[in-house]
Amino acid sequence: MARPDGRLPHQLRPVKITRNFIEFAEGSALIEFGKTRVLCTASLEDRVPPWLVGSGTGWITGEYGMLPKSCRQRVPRESTQGKVGGRTHEIQRLLGRCMRAVVDLGRIGQRTIWIDCDVLQADGGTRTASITGAAVALHDALTFMKENKLIDTWPMTGLVAAVSVGICDGVPVLDLSYREDSAASVDMNVVMTEAGKFIEIQGTAEGAPFTHEEHLRMLELAESGMRSLFLLQKKALGLS
Amino acid sequence: MARPDGRLPHQLRPVKITRNFIEFAEGSALIEFGKTRVLCTASLEDRVPPWLVGSGTGWITGEYGMLPKSCRQRVPRESTQGKVGGRTHEIQRLLGRCMRAVVDLGRIGQRTIWIDCDVLQADGGTRTASITGAAVALHDALTFMKENKLIDTWPMTGLVAAVSVGICDGVPVLDLSYREDSAASVDMNVVMTEAGKFIEIQGTAEGAPFTHEEHLRMLELAESGMRSLFLLQKKALGLS
Amino acid sequence: MARPDGRLPHQLRPVKITRNFIEFAEGSALIEFGKTRVLCTASLEDRVPPWLVGSGTGWITGEYGMLPKSCRQRVPRESTQGKVGGRTHEIQRLLGRCMRAVVDLGRIGQRTIWIDCDVLQADGGTRTASITGAAVALHDALTFMKENKLIDTWPMTGLVAAVSVGICDGVPVLDLSYREDSAASVDMNVVMTEAGKFIEIQGTAEGAPFTHEEHLRMLELAESGMRSLFLLQKKALGLS
Amino acid sequence: MARPDGRLPHQLRPVKITRNFIEFAEGSALIEFGKTRVLCTASLEDRVPPWLVGSGTGWITGEYGMLPKSCRQRVPRESTQGKVGGRTHEIQRLLGRCMRAVVDLGRIGQRTIWIDCDVLQADGGTRTASITGAAVALHDALTFMKENKLIDTWPMTGLVAAVSVGICDGVPVLDLSYREDSAASVDMNVVMTEAGKFIEIQGTAEGAPFTHEEHLRMLELAESGMRSLFLLQKKALGLS
Amino acid sequence: MARPDGRLPHQLRPVKITRNFIEFAEGSALIEFGKTRVLCTASLEDRVPPWLVGSGTGWITGEYGMLPKSCRQRVPRESTQGKVGGRTHEIQRLLGRCMRAVVDLGRIGQRTIWIDCDVLQADGGTRTASITGAAVALHDALTFMKENKLIDTWPMTGLVAAVSVGICDGVPVLDLSYREDSAASVDMNVVMTEAGKFIEIQGTAEGAPFTHEEHLRMLELAESGMRSLFLLQKKALGLS
Amino acid sequence: MARPDGRLPHQLRPVKITRNFIEFAEGSALIEFGKTRVLCTASLEDRVPPWLVGSGTGWITGEYGMLPKSCRQRVPRESTQGKVGGRTHEIQRLLGRCMRAVVDLGRIGQRTIWIDCDVLQADGGTRTASITGAAVALHDALTFMKENKLIDTWPMTGLVAAVSVGICDGVPVLDLSYREDSAASVDMNVVMTEAGKFIEIQGTAEGAPFTHEEHLRMLELAESGMRSLFLLQKKALGLS
Repeated sequence: MARPDGRLPHQLRPVKITRNFIEFAEGSALIEFGKTRVLCTASLEDRVPPWLVGSGTGWITGEYGMLPKSCRQRVPRESTQGKVGGRTHEIQRLLGRCMRAVVDLGRIGQRTIWIDCDVLQADGGTRTASITGAAVALHDALTFMKENKLIDTWPMTGLVAAVSVGICDGVPVLDLSYREDSAASVDMNVVMTEAGKFIEIQGTAEGAPFTHEEHLRMLELAESGMRSLFLLQKKALGLS
Repeated sequence: MARPDGRLPHQLRPVKITRNFIEFAEGSALIEFGKTRVLCTASLEDRVPPWLVGSGTGWITGEYGMLPKSCRQRVPRESTQGKVGGRTHEIQRLLGRCMRAVVDLGRIGQRTIWIDCDVLQADGGTRTASITGAAVALHDALTFMKENKLIDTWPMTGLVAAVSVGICDGVPVLDLSYREDSAASVDMNVVMTEAGKFIEIQGTAEGAPFTHEEHLRMLELAESGMRSLFLLQKKALGLS
Repeated sequence: MARPDGRLPHQLRPVKITRNFIEFAEGSALIEFGKTRVLCTASLEDRVPPWLVGSGTGWITGEYGMLPKSCRQRVPRESTQGKVGGRTHEIQRLLGRCMRAVVDLGRIGQRTIWIDCDVLQADGGTRTASITGAAVALHDALTFMKENKLIDTWPMTGLVAAVSVGICDGVPVLDLSYREDSAASVDMNVVMTEAGKFIEIQGTAEGAPFTHEEHLRMLELAESGMRSLFLLQKKALGLS
Repeated sequence: MARPDGRLPHQLRPVKITRNFIEFAEGSALIEFGKTRVLCTASLEDRVPPWLVGSGTGWITGEYGMLPKSCRQRVPRESTQGKVGGRTHEIQRLLGRCMRAVVDLGRIGQRTIWIDCDVLQADGGTRTASITGAAVALHDALTFMKENKLIDTWPMTGLVAAVSVGICDGVPVLDLSYREDSAASVDMNVVMTEAGKFIEIQGTAEGAPFTHEEHLRMLELAESGMRSLFLLQKKALGLS
Repeated sequence: MARPDGRLPHQLRPVKITRNFIEFAEGSALIEFGKTRVLCTASLEDRVPPWLVGSGTGWITGEYGMLPKSCRQRVPRESTQGKVGGRTHEIQRLLGRCMRAVVDLGRIGQRTIWIDCDVLQADGGTRTASITGAAVALHDALTFMKENKLIDTWPMTGLVAAVSVGICDGVPVLDLSYREDSAASVDMNVVMTEAGKFIEIQGTAEGAPFTHEEHLRMLELAESGMRSLFLLQKKALGLS
Repeated sequence: MARPDGRLPHQLRPVKITRNFIEFAEGSALIEFGKTRVLCTASLEDRVPPWLVGSGTGWITGEYGMLPKSCRQRVPRESTQGKVGGRTHEIQRLLGRCMRAVVDLGRIGQRTIWIDCDVLQADGGTRTASITGAAVALHDALTFMKENKLIDTWPMTGLVAAVSVGICDGVPVLDLSYREDSAASVDMNVVMTEAGKFIEIQGTAEGAPFTHEEHLRMLELAESGMRSLFLLQKKALGLS
């Protein structure tokens, strides 16, 4: 059973990472997974949320948005609607947690790093592309801090990447496009550290529930996909 | 290493299900997991969301709320703040998905079933208690529909239950209380059907990331916990 | 002309007060007037609104909400609608005023006591049940403060109770159920102190305006009803 | 004990009613109670709220606002704050109820009459001035409807007026100015029909609770004040 | 080609300025351009926006609103709709800019002057009437400050006035009424200082774009209209 | 007196237009004016606003947004703040007007064309870049409609472009960067059709008011700048 774009079940779409897409951000990356394109920035603010004032530690928070015409069917702006929707909230919370999981917040001082992921074009997997691209932008922002002597010791414990897996027509597949995602019976997003440990595993049956075995097979695909992504991140960052 | 209330790692808190707590709802259940108490109702509305009008199928949607003094530290009302927070959105979406996963929406006619879960007292695990209690309320609402000849064939494919698992001081434990949850390095919520298939697996590293092995051990604990919950649901419903 | 539930015009519905319904609140009471059930909590916060900072005095404020399925016809959540409605505002203001009227705010220190009344089931008279139940919860919270040496002298000048009266089919009746309330031509809520003085008298002609004599007859019924409520409050509090 | 402006306890402030202040409204009146000035308009809309469509009957609804500099201390606009406050809600609901109480809605056709009361200058008693002025604007709008053959039979059952009473330094007084209102221990607003029946009685203890006797004395003052207001309304309308 | 009210192309409508319309404001003026009537107030607040605290300078800000029945077709309140619309925002920003342009903010101390323009009746040109009337109210508020020794030196560099011009049926005309404005192909608002310099020129083609020559002809009409307005402002202020 | 980037007063920054930046939109262009980069899309919707239903005509509307890190100082998202600010409103209204001015809406059928301009990087002149880029996206969307036989006759009467001019240190200059804009005493945006007629002229004194002569000199600079922009648009569209 063929995938719409001819990929094998375990293949990622072509992934491209363009660093420094935005000149004004301390770190930025345009990440592309096939037609999905997300602009990720990491920017510094010299203050922390109220509950951290005086704690000596910093904070990393994430925001996510979709441009109205990033989708085939134009999506109304959340600003116009006057509120941020549930899906956006979910992704923003995930984004912040993932970035905080690989940074020692005690080493960045009383600062907030804002991670902004804005989807320019959406063809499935925007949240996992956001995480993978944000890690690159974050790495650059931390490098900026190091070079400008804002921090003494390197605070990032390693890279983080994310990928989606799912079950389409009974077959577990990696990195679903929008068309595949719409038809999948199960959708799972996995976030892993470079060291091979999980930060998030979120599997959801959209149609039929899934078995223990299917869950394991999807996890395996995801782990293999993320190992490829770590290589791409490192290459983009000139670390390999 | 002892748990605060002396339970073994694989033990649930005492669970109590009181059906028909609210007279005006087609189905209702007060569910208690130790000190956590959630009031779950299932109520019928004779219309469907716009995108289903004319489709012949029905809809199930979930809403979740916490009473201000359900927590030790009073929580401001979301109504007063003028918006529903990200965590609430996340839980509401989960609630709806889980209930829809065990009902054949084509059999309930052009109706919406509203699942409302309101936390009277919160001591950890409110979202999993909500799902487990909501399944009972939903079952009663469907029985009401059957008895009142609103539906011809039984639309529920089985029960659904949910439980939390986590890693506390390096030990995987089942059904965390608030105190345990606050200290856990990993928090995972699992939703399963009576047939043993998964609807949702959501594992999140709050502190240290978790290994593949830890993930599997947590899944195992959760499955065992949910098997107990199915027995309690059935007993409450007089099905066993 | 008979009342739907066979009561005489001057009879209250069965009233039941369950103290300590919520373990995490300093004071709490579940109050039932027939099928109307309201959960009332009184909780302490160690700060006051901005305009009282430094004044040495405290504050008592009230909030009110209805669970969506407290009514036969499900009521949308105010949180989902993004705003608190006019009726809720009215009740909240009333609730706060009534509680403040029987407490010497100068004796509770720079603290706020939050009174939360949440309607679990609504069958008429929710605002008067809220006030009557809140007085019990408030009494318990003040006792908690006394026992924990947060206050020196007892600040409550007496109990406060409230009841509704109305004119149904030309006959003044006490404590209207929802069905009676819907059909009443006049609806009046009266709030009185234990000493027999009024805090609020709010009479509204929903249909035909009412005469001076009808007003006096309703007031008389209300006074008699509240005298019964004071006895029930005292019994619940172990004061008699 | 003298009143700030030298009035006797039972005296109204000078009241002035200017009809047709706004050319574009079907009915309008600028009403002044001393320094309190409220612009009242009644305007027609050729549709009814959803719940009345097809009922053959009409609707009257009220809205109330204060210009920012109507008060000595500038009041922020509710539009800027993004929501209508509790006090405004309360007054709007009262305004609508009072106007509906004197009109046979079955006779105005499927139309809505909007009553807008906007306070240009506020010196106490704005809600009672609003009701008293709105009755004049409403009368004019109904006359417009009659003259334009939009209605066949006169739908207004009589005029309606409102006045405030209170207890200042232990003395019941009529029509309180802002300065008196701020110092009053009890504040009561009474709304009456021309036939001497009550539409609303709202008495609130701001400080000490009030006795049955004080309540009766205040009612008496209010009735006498409203009898004067009916004469002024009729004179303004050319009905006497 | 005649104008609806018989005016020549270069004629203003009758303009009337009534000072001190609101007793509680430091400065106020009711300004009328034909049937357009705007109530303008200038009021003092003893603090500045956050970004000016400690700067030694003051601020002037403007707000604008329309009463619901100021228009023939009732306009819903922005407070009821929960937000300020785009047109209102535009006018508010313009209002603030214009007033700040003629006041040396360094001379008014750390204070905010609120300019509120509320439209009682709208027949075209409300924004230009607002600016012209606000200048009078502002002048009076500054005089109040001078007389009360809140300021030492006169901070206003001159008056400011505004007027609309447009092209109706191909003919440039001054001070359009609502009826003319609706039919105009071009609408232009011009704001000028007493010294003949421009603060704002806002020309908008509503229908056909306009030529350079038409633009110049409209500017000329506007300048001549504003020279008349300066005379009227001065006469109202007793300055001539 | 030199400009920060060495340009002469009448010189535009380097302008670059990249068509088809977004695959899912019927028309799209990334436009760059120096460091200012705006993503413009034009997308079709098969319905019109309520007031045009049944009119046979179509509609064009514009929305504008800034990505949070488009500015050196991160700008909070309007979605997070729950409302669209005044500046955004102003630009959106302008954008819609300008596009409608060059399209015969009667020829596009009962459809809405959404113009979305999202600023990726902001260095001054984002609104004029938006208009200039949007015209290209609109042209492509109309070509799409023509090629897909959604329209019969070409509805665009010509291109439209916009540019900013201002007075810096007393010298009128074209196309201000952010740094120049911040220091300018006058800021003017001009929108012109290919035929040399004006759609909008918006001149604002931020500091000192400007003379008639300065206004004319700025207009002249703007006209010359827009003539260059028309050539660039045509080249990008392959029309020259």
